[in-house]
Amino acid sequence: MEIDKLKRVIRRNSLFDGSRRENDAEHSWHVGMMAMIMSEHAPPGTDLAKVVAMLLVHDIVEIDAGDTFVYDTRAVERQSALERAAADRIFGLLPADQAKRMRDLWDEFEERLTPESRFAKALDRFAPILANHHNEGGTWPLHKVTARQVLEKVQIITEGSATLGAYAAGLVEASVASGHLAP
Amino acid sequence: MEIDKLKRVIRRNSLFDGSRRENDAEHSWHVGMMAMIMSEHAPPGTDLAKVVAMLLVHDIVEIDAGDTFVYDTRAVERQSALERAAADRIFGLLPADQAKRMRDLWDEFEERLTPESRFAKALDRFAPILANHHNEGGTWPLHKVTARQVLEKVQIITEGSATLGAYAAGLVEASVASGHLAP
Repeated sequence: MEIDKLKRVIRRNSLFDGSRRENDAEHSWHVGMMAMIMSEHAPPGTDLAKVVAMLLVHDIVEIDAGDTFVYDTRAVERQSALERAAADRIFGLLPADQAKRMRDLWDEFEERLTPESRFAKALDRFAPILANHHNEGGTWPLHKVTARQVLEKVQIITEGSATLGAYAAGLVEASVASGHLAP
Repeated sequence: MEIDKLKRVIRRNSLFDGSRRENDAEHSWHVGMMAMIMSEHAPPGTDLAKVVAMLLVHDIVEIDAGDTFVYDTRAVERQSALERAAADRIFGLLPADQAKRMRDLWDEFEERLTPESRFAKALDRFAPILANHHNEGGTWPLHKVTARQVLEKVQIITEGSATLGAYAAGLVEASVASGHLAP
């Protein structure tokens, strides 16, 4: 019941056809599917089921904390405490054993110390780059985002998957070349 | 890229707050999460990762075939051929090994012969009952759906999970008692 609210948390990026902005629930589904389809780009031995589970759970804290624009550095700093409080409240609605299981998944995702969480975070960073690239820059020009800033996010992708990082770097390059992203 | 379109396939039921109708992508996320949270209600030995994967994939064919109202018997009959053609086209966009993996998941879900697919289908049927129950009947009165019709769907839930089926039957009873569902 509670997580139905995630369908009303709106992200910065749009659907690929530009018709409206994306919500957190459908984004979480999309990156979960991406994990299944792009599993060959995860490091060998990655527990894919865990990656999918992590991606389904990763944004639930935004029910309380809201979506943060990834290029707004100050907001990202403030966000961390808000998100931990949200995790306490929302996962705390579950029986203790389930609460721990969900919280462990979310903590692992946030800490980015395991191959699973690094690959999951890579897909989370990759999705809006893919959307913006195919949407004439999408929210990049609107918020005056530059290629240098996007390439910092690409670094996070590369840490989860070298091939996916290289592909994302190519998308950034192509977006600059087509004039949809400032150099 | 292709499956982004699932975010624009609109279902009959609304969000729990009644603010708008739900789309297939966010629905798929929600039932995937439900599988994780309600795993104790699956038969012992159920492969939960497979249930989640199946639920993420189960509605993708509706990109071409559209959503069918589950109580429109004629539409449900017509839908089957449309959905198979959609599966051919959409999963066929993938390399052959991935196409087979996705198609096998979808076929298994549709055939409902395994514990995984029965539990997945149970959750798929349970979600709109939960939404309508908490939404003053939601789309039930609008389409003159009766408790007898909903209880046929509850039977499908029971085949996947006895405890979930019993709980759903209780929701139906409560909706009738509160006047939100015709007896």
